[in-house]
Amino acid sequence: MRILGIDPGLRTLGWGIIDSQGSRLSHVANGQIRSEGQALSVRLLSLYDQLFEVVRRFAPETAAVEQTFVNKDGAGTLKLGQARGIAMLVPAQAGLEIGEYAPNRVKKTVVGVGHADKAQVLHMVRLQLPGCEPAGPDAADALAIAICHAYYGPAAAIVEREVRA
Amino acid sequence: MRILGIDPGLRTLGWGIIDSQGSRLSHVANGQIRSEGQALSVRLLSLYDQLFEVVRRFAPETAAVEQTFVNKDGAGTLKLGQARGIAMLVPAQAGLEIGEYAPNRVKKTVVGVGHADKAQVLHMVRLQLPGCEPAGPDAADALAIAICHAYYGPAAAIVEREVRA
Repeated sequence: MRILGIDPGLRTLGWGIIDSQGSRLSHVANGQIRSEGQALSVRLLSLYDQLFEVVRRFAPETAAVEQTFVNKDGAGTLKLGQARGIAMLVPAQAGLEIGEYAPNRVKKTVVGVGHADKAQVLHMVRLQLPGCEPAGPDAADALAIAICHAYYGPAAAIVEREVRA
Repeated sequence: MRILGIDPGLRTLGWGIIDSQGSRLSHVANGQIRSEGQALSVRLLSLYDQLFEVVRRFAPETAAVEQTFVNKDGAGTLKLGQARGIAMLVPAQAGLEIGEYAPNRVKKTVVGVGHADKAQVLHMVRLQLPGCEPAGPDAADALAIAICHAYYGPAAAIVEREVRA
């Protein structure tokens, strides 16, 4: 199963694509989408177009988006929310189910502890996806989210299908 | 000039379309888009599809979106941000320039005072757009945003063109 992980952000949105076969994971691609110094509407449109192209090109079958950390800075939360709206919309338009995972859960799954730092996440992403070189910290986070979804998401979806059948 | 005004929200997104010829305004259409009780991604997709249909059907030439009030509730701000991302994306995809106005400026323009209540906004929207019956308070707010944009937005755009020419 091909999984798209997204670490949403207005300035930089990280994305990562992995393939999951049973417990075997492999890296497909990753990157960071930037939108800077323009009108908000133009930046959101740019995020949309670039993420749309990632989905078109790699054809993921399921997606996962990080549950955003709600901080005390209202203006920052609003910006992040607007980027996250685009990050949820694009895979939804492609008909994908979208898992949402809190940052702590992602870190616990990938590193083993919920308060791991970025260097530990990067190390474990490289270890679990041989040959993978993340384009930056946001791309590494996006790959970690995809790995987390490989463990929880598709399995949960399979259970759901079996219960329904 | 045909103007689309949007009052963004995840549960209810208000929209209003008006025509502006010089200082003469006329009502074209208004409505409220709802998305309730589903997965966030499905709700965002539903907002997108419904707002896309409004833009396709009425072909506005410019748009205005309310500058969201950033409150102390981080989770609420994040939800609103996600809906606002969609509200900005759809007119941007249609190639429209998008004005942004703070709620106080909208009220000052339409009612004359920045702290007007919803009943006053509704009254003045009806007065300035004869024959108009807003679908609800969010649609009335959206029409007020469109009226505000009629006063500031296209005029500002014309000035900009003249300066460039």
